[in-house]
Amino acid sequence: MFCKYTGFSEISTPFFVSKSIYTHFFCTFVPSKQEIMANTITKRSENYSEWYNDIVAKAELAENSDVRGCMVIRPYGYSIWERMQRILDDKFKETGHVNAYFPLFIPKSFLSKEAEHVEGFAKECAVVTHYRLKANPEGKGLIVDPDAKLEEELVIRPTSETIIWNTYRNWIQSYRDLPLLINQWANVVRWELRTRMFLRTAEFLWQEGHTAHSSAEEAVAETKQMLDVYTEFAEKTLAIPVIKGVKTPNERFAGALDTYCIEAMMQDGKALQAGTSHFLGQNFAKAFDVKFANKENQMEYVWATSWGVSTRLIGALIMAHSDDDGLRLPPVLAPVQVVFVPIYKTEEEKKAVLDKCYELADQLKKAGIRIKVDADETKRSGWKFAEWEMKGVPVRLAMGPRDLANQQIESARRDTKEKSSVSTGEGFVENISQLLSDIQQNLFNQAKALRESRTYKADTMEEFKQILEGENPGFIYAHWDGTTETELKIKEETAATIRCIPIGNPLEEGVCIYSGKPSTQRVVFAKAY
Amino acid sequence: MFCKYTGFSEISTPFFVSKSIYTHFFCTFVPSKQEIMANTITKRSENYSEWYNDIVAKAELAENSDVRGCMVIRPYGYSIWERMQRILDDKFKETGHVNAYFPLFIPKSFLSKEAEHVEGFAKECAVVTHYRLKANPEGKGLIVDPDAKLEEELVIRPTSETIIWNTYRNWIQSYRDLPLLINQWANVVRWELRTRMFLRTAEFLWQEGHTAHSSAEEAVAETKQMLDVYTEFAEKTLAIPVIKGVKTPNERFAGALDTYCIEAMMQDGKALQAGTSHFLGQNFAKAFDVKFANKENQMEYVWATSWGVSTRLIGALIMAHSDDDGLRLPPVLAPVQVVFVPIYKTEEEKKAVLDKCYELADQLKKAGIRIKVDADETKRSGWKFAEWEMKGVPVRLAMGPRDLANQQIESARRDTKEKSSVSTGEGFVENISQLLSDIQQNLFNQAKALRESRTYKADTMEEFKQILEGENPGFIYAHWDGTTETELKIKEETAATIRCIPIGNPLEEGVCIYSGKPSTQRVVFAKAY
Repeated sequence: MFCKYTGFSEISTPFFVSKSIYTHFFCTFVPSKQEIMANTITKRSENYSEWYNDIVAKAELAENSDVRGCMVIRPYGYSIWERMQRILDDKFKETGHVNAYFPLFIPKSFLSKEAEHVEGFAKECAVVTHYRLKANPEGKGLIVDPDAKLEEELVIRPTSETIIWNTYRNWIQSYRDLPLLINQWANVVRWELRTRMFLRTAEFLWQEGHTAHSSAEEAVAETKQMLDVYTEFAEKTLAIPVIKGVKTPNERFAGALDTYCIEAMMQDGKALQAGTSHFLGQNFAKAFDVKFANKENQMEYVWATSWGVSTRLIGALIMAHSDDDGLRLPPVLAPVQVVFVPIYKTEEEKKAVLDKCYELADQLKKAGIRIKVDADETKRSGWKFAEWEMKGVPVRLAMGPRDLANQQIESARRDTKEKSSVSTGEGFVENISQLLSDIQQNLFNQAKALRESRTYKADTMEEFKQILEGENPGFIYAHWDGTTETELKIKEETAATIRCIPIGNPLEEGVCIYSGKPSTQRVVFAKAY
Repeated sequence: MFCKYTGFSEISTPFFVSKSIYTHFFCTFVPSKQEIMANTITKRSENYSEWYNDIVAKAELAENSDVRGCMVIRPYGYSIWERMQRILDDKFKETGHVNAYFPLFIPKSFLSKEAEHVEGFAKECAVVTHYRLKANPEGKGLIVDPDAKLEEELVIRPTSETIIWNTYRNWIQSYRDLPLLINQWANVVRWELRTRMFLRTAEFLWQEGHTAHSSAEEAVAETKQMLDVYTEFAEKTLAIPVIKGVKTPNERFAGALDTYCIEAMMQDGKALQAGTSHFLGQNFAKAFDVKFANKENQMEYVWATSWGVSTRLIGALIMAHSDDDGLRLPPVLAPVQVVFVPIYKTEEEKKAVLDKCYELADQLKKAGIRIKVDADETKRSGWKFAEWEMKGVPVRLAMGPRDLANQQIESARRDTKEKSSVSTGEGFVENISQLLSDIQQNLFNQAKALRESRTYKADTMEEFKQILEGENPGFIYAHWDGTTETELKIKEETAATIRCIPIGNPLEEGVCIYSGKPSTQRVVFAKAY
């Protein structure tokens, strides 16, 4: 991979900053952990799953920990999550929400209170049964102290509806206490059997909104508003086009009356649910006895919503945009939007080039662009190019003495790999800004074109299976008779599920591809993460 | 409390916005939860502990949950934590740190690896033993599924040294991988027997920095640097003066070679440890076998630090600054720095007053001031005044039609309760900014004056006990012979502990107040939270 960059331009041949470092490198060079991990990754076409794992590892996003199913989110991966948090949090606050924090632990009995909810979560939760360890009297190490057994076991929250609605009971008395518009940033645990970094992990980070309303209409409006917030975030920030829809009863959140979702297509044609927003009706209010006095002073149960997105979005981002050279980050999200690589041989060149780099970097910074000058003298330019490419930084700027003399800089776009010379004089900042906008738009366009090229209609099970088993599987719009039975049979036979009933779906008469029964609209099927 | 404000100015008599709301209020008024909770709190002089609890409750900062020892941090309390996070996080990043995320779970065997660490934490940790619940075959509800027992129990992290150093082993190979400067924002759990909101809870939120270095000198410098970051944060942001010092061996973090701390005085003269920074030596590197190749290509164990502050700081804030009318927030930290209360009777007045309020609010916003216009028509002005006073907003601005005509606004400082007329013309923004700076400084000065008035020297145990049992206990500088034995005896007899050995402490010959043995310096004793 290093060699690939040696021909970058006449000034980019890898060399070293000063004699001493040069000597050092070849004489007593001790490789860093990074340098040992060469930047070679599996090609998508060879093994899509390995390609994904390689990017997670080589872009230093995350790694598996020694705790089953739990990952370590590495600093670069976490910086992407921090950007997501900041942007979403601003949107939540703009729409009137505030943050709060509820306990990690849920008493076992709380889970049982909502009948469907317990079905959905009790089977995969981490259970705290004791509150002390003690030295093993029969040997080495620690044992659980049998005298420190909890009276009631505690579950690590898989989601917080129960503990939150138990709290809301004391916060809500009258319609004047409503709406309650609260969000929580938290870790949650679901003891999944098969885990995969970012996509499905035992512990993950997320935000969960939990709102309380005085009418069903207001709660539904909130559910839809948050779906719109997620849609805008997916499309404008992540540059991932999504289909907004409603889940079938079988795919609903446990305890919801309706689950709205956004569904994205990954590069292998599989769907990824990128966010959900639930209209919970009065289910949790009834389970936890949360009532309010309405304007007529009559007691009514409160209406609820909940909505969330998680670190799974980082998985979506990887699979929507990355290529065989690594991650490609949309500029709006990228923690580093522009990386400067200064190139020089002599001390004189170093000073001149670095001075100019920092001057230009300052101009970009003032315009609000997130920039990094990679002046690390222990790494070769070729290595830096490959590293920042792997990490998906949208624009790389390289400047050597000749560029400096010509008052220009070489820019390389991460999305198209196009290189061009940009004047460092008037219009420099505007040109780089424009480049970032173009890249943002281009990533969205590419993802959308992929989705369009892999969106099909199927009118028979045969067509349906052919598409799924073909070279380019994707989303299939097909008629369905509306029963869970049929949905499950199709899943059993093909592994495809109904991703959603799209919002604003055109009505169309047809017959179910499986049962032949009449249907009024097509729904979206796909294999999914 | 409401009546207190009726005399605020000629235009502030509580009344209602329009005929309809007025009628509504007295005819079919349904009180909100907030209005039922009248803003009366216990006086500090009557019951300090109740006063603290009242502020936590009435300022809507937090409440106890149904899970033993765990609190719910309410939106207003959480907004204070968010401000703390933002300011600290910026400082951490300025000093070269990055954030990451490590698992919530720690395998039981990890805890045992560092001998002192396990002593400190094994006795109070939440232990996960199972990963599934199931329906109770003998009746209602759920039971822990005995078939879903974990092979090795998992502890909820009480602090993350072990899981992090287990991870660092794979990240560090050579001196070129060092230093690693990583921070984590997380929840942790310590199963404390006696809990108290913010000050000591089973689950709490914090940040924990974990850094790895190639030399002891560099690690010690990092430890001290972070202590300085905390000191500046405490004094400049929280407006709480602190003593920087080193803990005695007995009070050290379990596994540290040295624990540095900042100690603050609360209004009852007790000490509160507001932040700690630990030099861990090579203890965790040895426990988890983390070595690096130095420049001479020889393998050495890595040097470590860790440092943290938690939601406990909200408890410190309350006890350092609040008065008998509620919270007093330092402006730098306050989520809302200025609250506008518009006052009017007629619709014409309403429009004119509100227009001007929003215009002035905009001016303040543009200057970076966090401002809220409280235009809620369902609440009386007197109620609003009391509410914002309870919540500690540093400046309240009230404007009625007469103020509008006179081109002025009435300002009330939360710290001194002083009111004055401020011109809404030229210099308005500068005057309000100056007021905020003055309040910040004044809160610090008051806290410092309190500390000075309650700082003593004692040369005998008799003097020592007299101070502690007197009207105004506080910090006592006294000679100590340097032994843990004496330290524990003094604690047993007086409940006072050595808070720290201050950094830069002047050397002074003397004799230990307890043992009479020679001593070279005085250390700081106090009762502590």
